Amino acid sequence: MSTASRPATARLWLPSRSSSSPCSSTSRRSTSGRPLPSPEPGTPVDRVDTPALVVDLDALERNLDRMAAFATRTGKRVRPHAKTHKSPLVARMQLDRGAVGLCCAKLGEAEVMADAGVGPLLITTEIAGQPKVARLVALRRRAVVLVAVDDMDTARTLSDAMRAADLVLDVLVDVNVGQERTGVAPDGAGELAACIASLPGLRLRGIQAYEGHLQHVYAEAERRARWRECADRMLAAHEGLTKRGLDSEILSTAGTGTCAFAAELPEVTEVQAGSYPFMDSDYAQVEGLPYESSLTVLASVVSRQRGDTAVIDAGWKALSTDAGMPAVKGRPELEYVTKGDEHGGVRGARMTPGERIELVPSHCDTTVNLYDEYVCVRAGVVEAVWPIAARGRIQ
Amino acid sequence: MSTASRPATARLWLPSRSSSSPCSSTSRRSTSGRPLPSPEPGTPVDRVDTPALVVDLDALERNLDRMAAFATRTGKRVRPHAKTHKSPLVARMQLDRGAVGLCCAKLGEAEVMADAGVGPLLITTEIAGQPKVARLVALRRRAVVLVAVDDMDTARTLSDAMRAADLVLDVLVDVNVGQERTGVAPDGAGELAACIASLPGLRLRGIQAYEGHLQHVYAEAERRARWRECADRMLAAHEGLTKRGLDSEILSTAGTGTCAFAAELPEVTEVQAGSYPFMDSDYAQVEGLPYESSLTVLASVVSRQRGDTAVIDAGWKALSTDAGMPAVKGRPELEYVTKGDEHGGVRGARMTPGERIELVPSHCDTTVNLYDEYVCVRAGVVEAVWPIAARGRIQ
Repeated sequence: MSTASRPATARLWLPSRSSSSPCSSTSRRSTSGRPLPSPEPGTPVDRVDTPALVVDLDALERNLDRMAAFATRTGKRVRPHAKTHKSPLVARMQLDRGAVGLCCAKLGEAEVMADAGVGPLLITTEIAGQPKVARLVALRRRAVVLVAVDDMDTARTLSDAMRAADLVLDVLVDVNVGQERTGVAPDGAGELAACIASLPGLRLRGIQAYEGHLQHVYAEAERRARWRECADRMLAAHEGLTKRGLDSEILSTAGTGTCAFAAELPEVTEVQAGSYPFMDSDYAQVEGLPYESSLTVLASVVSRQRGDTAVIDAGWKALSTDAGMPAVKGRPELEYVTKGDEHGGVRGARMTPGERIELVPSHCDTTVNLYDEYVCVRAGVVEAVWPIAARGRIQ
Repeated sequence: MSTASRPATARLWLPSRSSSSPCSSTSRRSTSGRPLPSPEPGTPVDRVDTPALVVDLDALERNLDRMAAFATRTGKRVRPHAKTHKSPLVARMQLDRGAVGLCCAKLGEAEVMADAGVGPLLITTEIAGQPKVARLVALRRRAVVLVAVDDMDTARTLSDAMRAADLVLDVLVDVNVGQERTGVAPDGAGELAACIASLPGLRLRGIQAYEGHLQHVYAEAERRARWRECADRMLAAHEGLTKRGLDSEILSTAGTGTCAFAAELPEVTEVQAGSYPFMDSDYAQVEGLPYESSLTVLASVVSRQRGDTAVIDAGWKALSTDAGMPAVKGRPELEYVTKGDEHGGVRGARMTPGERIELVPSHCDTTVNLYDEYVCVRAGVVEAVWPIAARGRIQ
């Protein structure tokens, strides 16, 4: 018998209930069926295999609408960061709501977005090394691309490559406003901008100034005060361009945690928030944000608890822990504990194998990067399964 | 002009040197070319795009040979854990050297291995929930599978499902020997084994007893002493089966850090070590192991250092940090520091954009799970690119 012909049977198979005798066995109908990697639309979420990355579509759409309303209210453009969702489908939803383009952290993400017809694209991290310069040229040939640059040698290399290919690349000067990661010092922005403006393969478009270190400062007053220091650095860099007569058409800045502050600065033209579609348990502690959690990891209990801890099938390979432990959705009294690569524990619950639980990741970006697809749910039923097309595109 | 027709040009493109003028631009030949996701055999490693997961094939083969020699010397079988490498190709190298089968952590890994003709397969974690039981039946239909079970209800469910499909599933009693994760208590092993033996869809084959909590106890004397306590629990469980007249043909135990101890116990039939092919910077601190590091993440500097820290293109999405920070290969004076999802820092180095560095992951399993392929290198040249076929198979 072909096992491939009966997926519906596998999908609808029900296990027997425990009988009174601990070892009795009850014969059931066939359980044959090939592995079914993705649930079909119409599947109740309680029949979705685990661990699964679940998106609450209603909550996602509310978050996207809130950001669109922010743009309307403030007059700022929104260029959402695709490094969070890595999905051209979510990108399209953002563009449909008025986003002016997408940010990508890596060239590989931008390639995926470009191939899906999504753009224009801002690559927010520096491009270095021969293989990537060649890929950037190829990407520029087929897409509108803007790249952040913080180094004169890099600028020259990019200009040479673009010029040799009869192309011109749009560039933002990447400015360090306090994160101490990439970016020139604010007082060096003008000199780098002038260099970029002089290079025939590049076109200076403005400044990128990202204050990533402030996004998760929980207290709103502290976050605002520290943002003000970053704003001063942004403005110093901006002045470095304008006093040289260089155009600074774009000032791109801010994440989900700071975009409301950035909107108060007239010089800011756009925000590059990424996490707002999904949020996470760490962002949930950041005061004053109007976005809600829409992303969970659905997990199953696989082993009876020892004491009050149930063992579940979601470990480090299913949930990133770089921002701490996930939260248990709707049950703040329960605590997730690490049990290794493949397992987690849920402390405070009396559960049996097969029971389900939903976890809110502590960091949406790195958790999304572990999955191949979103299981998109509305009212407890799978509505769609979306590939995470740029998952793993770290090059 | 078609850009797809000239990948070789992209591959061989060289950037211009910096000239004496900081802003001069030198025209070069064409850099066109479509993205090239995988390096071709023959590519020098210093032209491989980054971040890349690199395997030193000589070191890998020496590690595999050492484990094969261990098996010959001790008379114990080796059933290597595929959750580390997730690659049927590495599995085949292990089988070619005498391994008796593979362990898989998840059903999804076992499906990938079975589809590649690799087996027999031991699934070392509990199977729970309807979707997985149906998938296990489908897998059992086409592969020799052995499953660890720690619960009578689960055993009955599996038996019912197998019986309904006219199949019999081989089962090991999973025993908790001190890790406090899955597994019955040692004094409950006999009762569960008797239950399993009575179920028509299951066949009792023996015991799994995994002391995962001891693998990374660095001091050899302490690791051995604590292993002895686990051994007593293993033997108690084993006696629980034998005193009931139940066969305990298999006693499967031990990881890379404890397999030498396990080999001293006559009752142990096999070890299920996983990390020995690759090792990692945490395992490197475990005393007394004969294996060497063969896995690195190749990364590039993307931004000039602030002070003595260079910023590289490998962050949390390229290197797991659940076991701590990676080490910098060959340069113990340098320190990796976290810079977020996409970036890391290397403290103690003066480097410029485009320069390369190799990092030894702190935890091989969770780092491998971030990549789609191994770039396999011998003597500085890419010899092969192997897909990590079971990456992300966490269900």
